[in-house]
Amino acid sequence: MSDSPTLIPSAAPPTRPNTARLLIGCPDRRGIVAAVSQFLFQHNTNIISSDQHSTDPETGRFFMRQEFSLEGLDVALPEFERHFSSIAASFEMNWRIAYASQPKRMAILCSKYDHCLLDLLWRVRRGEFDCEVVAVISNHTDLEADVRAFDIPFHHVPVTKDTKAQSEARILELLRGQADFAVLARYMQIISGDFLESVGMPVINIHHSFLPAFVGANPYKSAFARGVKIIGATAHYVTLELDAGPIIEQDVARVTHREDVRDLTQTGRDIERNVLARAVRAHLEDRVLVYQNKTVVFE
Amino acid sequence: MSDSPTLIPSAAPPTRPNTARLLIGCPDRRGIVAAVSQFLFQHNTNIISSDQHSTDPETGRFFMRQEFSLEGLDVALPEFERHFSSIAASFEMNWRIAYASQPKRMAILCSKYDHCLLDLLWRVRRGEFDCEVVAVISNHTDLEADVRAFDIPFHHVPVTKDTKAQSEARILELLRGQADFAVLARYMQIISGDFLESVGMPVINIHHSFLPAFVGANPYKSAFARGVKIIGATAHYVTLELDAGPIIEQDVARVTHREDVRDLTQTGRDIERNVLARAVRAHLEDRVLVYQNKTVVFE
Amino acid sequence: MSDSPTLIPSAAPPTRPNTARLLIGCPDRRGIVAAVSQFLFQHNTNIISSDQHSTDPETGRFFMRQEFSLEGLDVALPEFERHFSSIAASFEMNWRIAYASQPKRMAILCSKYDHCLLDLLWRVRRGEFDCEVVAVISNHTDLEADVRAFDIPFHHVPVTKDTKAQSEARILELLRGQADFAVLARYMQIISGDFLESVGMPVINIHHSFLPAFVGANPYKSAFARGVKIIGATAHYVTLELDAGPIIEQDVARVTHREDVRDLTQTGRDIERNVLARAVRAHLEDRVLVYQNKTVVFE
Amino acid sequence: MSDSPTLIPSAAPPTRPNTARLLIGCPDRRGIVAAVSQFLFQHNTNIISSDQHSTDPETGRFFMRQEFSLEGLDVALPEFERHFSSIAASFEMNWRIAYASQPKRMAILCSKYDHCLLDLLWRVRRGEFDCEVVAVISNHTDLEADVRAFDIPFHHVPVTKDTKAQSEARILELLRGQADFAVLARYMQIISGDFLESVGMPVINIHHSFLPAFVGANPYKSAFARGVKIIGATAHYVTLELDAGPIIEQDVARVTHREDVRDLTQTGRDIERNVLARAVRAHLEDRVLVYQNKTVVFE
Repeated sequence: MSDSPTLIPSAAPPTRPNTARLLIGCPDRRGIVAAVSQFLFQHNTNIISSDQHSTDPETGRFFMRQEFSLEGLDVALPEFERHFSSIAASFEMNWRIAYASQPKRMAILCSKYDHCLLDLLWRVRRGEFDCEVVAVISNHTDLEADVRAFDIPFHHVPVTKDTKAQSEARILELLRGQADFAVLARYMQIISGDFLESVGMPVINIHHSFLPAFVGANPYKSAFARGVKIIGATAHYVTLELDAGPIIEQDVARVTHREDVRDLTQTGRDIERNVLARAVRAHLEDRVLVYQNKTVVFE
Repeated sequence: MSDSPTLIPSAAPPTRPNTARLLIGCPDRRGIVAAVSQFLFQHNTNIISSDQHSTDPETGRFFMRQEFSLEGLDVALPEFERHFSSIAASFEMNWRIAYASQPKRMAILCSKYDHCLLDLLWRVRRGEFDCEVVAVISNHTDLEADVRAFDIPFHHVPVTKDTKAQSEARILELLRGQADFAVLARYMQIISGDFLESVGMPVINIHHSFLPAFVGANPYKSAFARGVKIIGATAHYVTLELDAGPIIEQDVARVTHREDVRDLTQTGRDIERNVLARAVRAHLEDRVLVYQNKTVVFE
Repeated sequence: MSDSPTLIPSAAPPTRPNTARLLIGCPDRRGIVAAVSQFLFQHNTNIISSDQHSTDPETGRFFMRQEFSLEGLDVALPEFERHFSSIAASFEMNWRIAYASQPKRMAILCSKYDHCLLDLLWRVRRGEFDCEVVAVISNHTDLEADVRAFDIPFHHVPVTKDTKAQSEARILELLRGQADFAVLARYMQIISGDFLESVGMPVINIHHSFLPAFVGANPYKSAFARGVKIIGATAHYVTLELDAGPIIEQDVARVTHREDVRDLTQTGRDIERNVLARAVRAHLEDRVLVYQNKTVVFE
Repeated sequence: MSDSPTLIPSAAPPTRPNTARLLIGCPDRRGIVAAVSQFLFQHNTNIISSDQHSTDPETGRFFMRQEFSLEGLDVALPEFERHFSSIAASFEMNWRIAYASQPKRMAILCSKYDHCLLDLLWRVRRGEFDCEVVAVISNHTDLEADVRAFDIPFHHVPVTKDTKAQSEARILELLRGQADFAVLARYMQIISGDFLESVGMPVINIHHSFLPAFVGANPYKSAFARGVKIIGATAHYVTLELDAGPIIEQDVARVTHREDVRDLTQTGRDIERNVLARAVRAHLEDRVLVYQNKTVVFE
């Protein structure tokens, strides 16, 4: 009601074009920042942002994320990366460079709940996320029409106790080579260890409690039974152990004795979708590094 | 990923059927609660919840909301209300009774921003709100397809400087007798005093700042310029004075020096839609009473 | 810097004098509110605030708190209570009446951490709490000088593995008949079941995690190890099972990968003292009712 | 209750000894990070943490904070700084180096409210802050005993309308050369422009509203009158314009229609002291840079 009508921003991509992000992890020691920033300077790039973290400056592990403009880059990208790999070797780095010109491909798995799925699709449509949604896969057809309205491929892969192996094989087929990461947007199936070992990409899950409280099924029911005054949600990378993977993002909301399980579920939906969205955005922007089942999430 | 697949709740309406809510406001004095609850008991209703507030027990104004079951009601509704009106008169009450069997009719006005509109429509579809959306009215056509996908009537009423009076007349025509209240879901037009005086129903607006900070246009720009560490949104009833009506709900989010106007706008969208949804829900459930340009919001 | 210097409020007690609070719990059925408010009206009291909660209007348990002025009370208090007891009997109520003229007597147990203890003592001194601190009991002497500066009796009751029984006997001696409730303000000793069964008064504990996450020792260390993005604190009534009693209040704070155990501990202190203070205030104001290991906390 | 009694940490200083923090601000351009980190590496220091911010990578201003260990420093400090000054000149930097071995000297001004003052003194005593409190100055004597209990010099400097100039002269005398910064811990006097121009050190104020809402006197009264659902507090550097200086930190709390001005004041106290403490800590750790009446606050 109070803005002038001319100020609506166009949905331009959130990332600056022609930029890249360098991510490294290595044993901490003197000279890492100097060597890396010297390298970037010599190749005529401009550092736009830089974040670093050390688990311990003496004996710990060092993590860094540098975002830089490729505008004036003096060599071709393969040569640029080859040059860097020799620096990386001397510091024993794990590293990768992500290019803004290559947005990540996201696949979403869901079941019947629509709130996390729709929220992700809205954000993509609105230009909040730099990514392409390559597939939505569900063990139900309830959300098919919603997905198709966004012009996104929908795949129905039903799962029964007896067909779980075939279903997972089918999902792997849809993911591998097609997606860069997968999001479980309230996908109501336990994923097998075999699947995880084969999938070859990060899988992000949203769990509807503030982990490590209320691992497993029906956390809102458990929260009600325990009489907590706060409920929450947790986005994490999926690992073999249920609900125990590296936490990317969490948030909570206050509740009172007046709220029954149904109310907690409703309040929780708003937390779930926001937490998942923030986790997906951090992942898309290469701000999450995993180490020892924990995350460094750079701002 | 961690719920069993059988626990998806059906989207039953949030309100108990066959219940009613009695709302009163009157000068505070002894005996009000006794008289009202005695009345409800004598007519064989069962009080489900009761909230009250007094601005001052000696000289103030008393507000009460009682929700009760009509299961065993011993008279017809008109007689029930007639009986109550004599109690009401003796306490100089303003009062009304809202029946769960008559859900409110909501009209939504919007422009080009989709986040508040979609969030409301999605909540209605999910069964979070007990209401019927009778019309979406917009001065642009950008959101028409979205609205029609929900099977809701969409009305395009363009507004120019010269046609403002006719446009408002057309909107009044669409609202009066058709809707019980209207929601400005980021509707980017100043509403005239004439309109407000004619519309004859509550109008809820979402303003994208924590009022009274940043009244008027471009609050995110102003927030950035001032360097605040917190941004917010405010849902309020619209009154003649811009952004100065009774506040129903507010919320905030932390921001840092890293966020530019675009980032604030994006973060703000998530606050706006949640604040507006909570305000609309409170209004639908008759939990908001207005007095002296402020609100009592019962939980 | 911006207030005028004349506006400093005196530390008047937070409770209205000559008021009382009636608390009831009983099977829900029609007519409870009518009967109770009729009773209060007939005895010429004025209801100042009223809250109620039902676990289920059909088959559940009903809770109510009514605060009322005794100004015009037409009978002596013993007779007033005797009259009420016959109403209470007909509804199978558990009930009690608390009088503002009889502030609760609080005993505090602590060890070496000062933050929760000092915060409680400051609030008492400032007039935020309606209570008398009758004793501070500690298994260490570190905080003795701090306590004596508030003119509050300090008792050193050391605890060793071998003397635990005698120590608890001594504490019981200090509490029984002297205090109305006890607060464990980071008291670093497990309290025995025998003690709890003998103490005969509510005992409030502050646990430094958002329960049920991180039950037991060293929750900040566990929180760091798990890599959570939120830490919290929980105030609860102590029961036989460790950290599993009815939760009164909880709160949280966001943390990042940058915070080590020491930082979490520091951030946590601010949450602990605020959560404990809110729980103690709710208890003092008779706003907490316990049922089935959960709490109803009226506002 | 749940920790083992042996785990109480000693109150070691929060800062690593023998470290320094380099703070710079300059026009953004390529090569800054490379030049600075190369310099630090060549002098055999180890970067412990590094943060940077650019208002715009093309045309904006660049800010950086690097914390580094002086363990292996190969030259004396004056020579180290001299070397750096030539790099600084070539990039047109504003810069300074703060040494952990030289903790800042803090002076506190207060009136009658104790909550912000006591909270600061208590945090200093606990070892949460790396600083020395050199003086507490008050226009009243109410808090003198509290301050003396911490073994800190207390100065009573009364202020009347007629003696304001002399009083400010006396305060300047107590501050200049003695303190590195001053904190207005709910000091209830408007500070003159003359004072600010003479004082020669940063002055931090805590204002009891979420600025820019409710500038000036009695913000809780104004908040109550406006009927806001959120109240807040703001810590900022003092400038000539009242309550309009660069904001360092803000926080809020939810309130309802039930809270009167007295309740808001009480709730607000908890926000005020926490916000002020976080701002003071950020200032002490050289994490705050000011530019164009806004702050960059590095984490």
